[in-house]
Amino acid sequence: MNQTLPQLADLSNAAFTQALQHKIDTKTKPLGSLGRLETLALSIGQILNTDCPVLKDPQMVVFAGDHGLVARGVSAFAQDVSWQMVENYLTGGAAVSVFSRANGIALTVVDCGVAHDFLAGLPEGAQRPGLIVRKVTGGEKGTADSSVQPAMTAAQCQEALQTGMDIVKGLPGNALLLGEMGIGNTSAASLLLARLAGLNIEVCTGAGTGLDAPGVQHKTEVLRSVLARHPQAQAPLEALAAFGGFEIAAMVGAMMQAAAERRVVVVDGFIATSALLVAHALQPLVLQRCVFSHRSGERGHEFMLQHLGVQALLDLGLRLGEGSGGALAWPLLQSACVMLREMASFESAGVSEKDSKHSATV
Amino acid sequence: MNQTLPQLADLSNAAFTQALQHKIDTKTKPLGSLGRLETLALSIGQILNTDCPVLKDPQMVVFAGDHGLVARGVSAFAQDVSWQMVENYLTGGAAVSVFSRANGIALTVVDCGVAHDFLAGLPEGAQRPGLIVRKVTGGEKGTADSSVQPAMTAAQCQEALQTGMDIVKGLPGNALLLGEMGIGNTSAASLLLARLAGLNIEVCTGAGTGLDAPGVQHKTEVLRSVLARHPQAQAPLEALAAFGGFEIAAMVGAMMQAAAERRVVVVDGFIATSALLVAHALQPLVLQRCVFSHRSGERGHEFMLQHLGVQALLDLGLRLGEGSGGALAWPLLQSACVMLREMASFESAGVSEKDSKHSATV
Repeated sequence: MNQTLPQLADLSNAAFTQALQHKIDTKTKPLGSLGRLETLALSIGQILNTDCPVLKDPQMVVFAGDHGLVARGVSAFAQDVSWQMVENYLTGGAAVSVFSRANGIALTVVDCGVAHDFLAGLPEGAQRPGLIVRKVTGGEKGTADSSVQPAMTAAQCQEALQTGMDIVKGLPGNALLLGEMGIGNTSAASLLLARLAGLNIEVCTGAGTGLDAPGVQHKTEVLRSVLARHPQAQAPLEALAAFGGFEIAAMVGAMMQAAAERRVVVVDGFIATSALLVAHALQPLVLQRCVFSHRSGERGHEFMLQHLGVQALLDLGLRLGEGSGGALAWPLLQSACVMLREMASFESAGVSEKDSKHSATV
Repeated sequence: MNQTLPQLADLSNAAFTQALQHKIDTKTKPLGSLGRLETLALSIGQILNTDCPVLKDPQMVVFAGDHGLVARGVSAFAQDVSWQMVENYLTGGAAVSVFSRANGIALTVVDCGVAHDFLAGLPEGAQRPGLIVRKVTGGEKGTADSSVQPAMTAAQCQEALQTGMDIVKGLPGNALLLGEMGIGNTSAASLLLARLAGLNIEVCTGAGTGLDAPGVQHKTEVLRSVLARHPQAQAPLEALAAFGGFEIAAMVGAMMQAAAERRVVVVDGFIATSALLVAHALQPLVLQRCVFSHRSGERGHEFMLQHLGVQALLDLGLRLGEGSGGALAWPLLQSACVMLREMASFESAGVSEKDSKHSATV
């Protein structure tokens, strides 16, 4: 089932990394004093294979899909909110809309299987600006209820992966920010975390959009039964198909395609990182292309970051999804690049380096 | 000595705060899901007294001054680096230069007493773009050595406070970002923290620009002797005069003036926050106007934030100063404002609110 996903090359290049690090170290600042912005600059330089990185035409893609599991009462919001929020993205009023606009990021929404016809009443073949309709075949109303059967068939999963790849192939620029919409998708993300990281469902399950304690307890029990329903779904794509959703599968495809093209992949919160868990299980090298925008307030995200062995940039208690955290962190990526491109070196600026006496040599 | 500093009004307005919070709560997102960006939006709205805040013409002012105490070997860099870095700001190659430029922030450097003549060789009365020379009288080479005598006289301290106030009065816009340059000024900041927060000097003293362990030990012993030299300097402005520096005093004046004008004051790292410790000790209401851009990697900054009872936005291990952290965090302030101004409400976007069943009511 993994045949269509691109194979990723290893970007490791010790000599180039050393040259990049030297460039960062000779900038006019105490050694290491820009902290994780330096690590970020190093990472972007490695991805784009240049010591003068320029981020061009950043693209936010929000994949949307509905989840059959919501029939089991796992979300604080009704399923209709999925399509209502897609309309909100298209009219520019959602968080990801305003943060993308404010930060110069283009926004595209992809309907992978939202239970709504966004083209109703339009002439045959008509399109809506900012929206790409690519409903998965047979999934026009969302995934199946994973407490009863796999959320997707293998063929549907494959189709969703291909959708993500196709979308990215058509995008300009060298940076991809990923977002998602789908009432119920913290459940799918929790299930993927539990299965792929080998954790108990209790620690993977959180309040999502705002469940109270009894709601979280109920959700946890439902998810426990879903895990028990699919004991055979251990491999990454089998787990993805079993637990869904279409938007997560499309993100997996998009991440892999962007990674193969050496785009900078900006990972948002709990749902986006669940897609990365799948991609990482398939090809760990995908991590070389990723920037983690924030640590979510949703329980479980920290465990995802731990599983991947990575640190996020922002830690503001965000738990909105949509790609909103990626859009908020984006200016830090730009600042990391201007640091590499525009900051003077001690030599070029005629600034004296550190005294050797009484100073650390690291 | 405090007569020239403006008196701050209390901005508390329960009805307006409640209206702002309601506006934030009815945006199309789960309640509270934008985490500390929501607190930030609330704060900016309160400062600018509007539920549609627009940040205009942000101004970064870097105050620079030298420190007599560097003769005691408390810094990893030589004093000449102060003026060399000022030249670096003016040619646009320093961190604060590139981050300010990248984020649309105007940059002004103020020479409060750097041991260098930036106008040497220029015709009488000539100026240099981006530089304001306002050396404190008698402090043309920097402050006195605080291990021997007070860093400043009361009159010099007053003059530096006035400089900061005067500079801000002449600036456009409604937001002030503060930065500083002065080899040795982590020492002054540590001393102010120890005295004003009542902490032992050991926990207030860090590596600054990169001292090794023996260097930090030596610095700590020097600072201990400085504290012992000025037992009478307990009141905020007496402590400020005893420990210096001119750039810190000017920041105190600038913060107070900006606060009086209801500008948003963006506080950088260890040195800038030491100025705020002084301002806060004089008038606690100054905190109502402040946004804390980041938590520095410099030991002691966390204790300053604890003393003030505040949280910072970024936590990236930055320890560069100059205002670099403020410039890096600036886009988050802009995003907080666009959230308030441009995000749709549930009602305006036609999005269903949360189900009451199984959902938290907070």
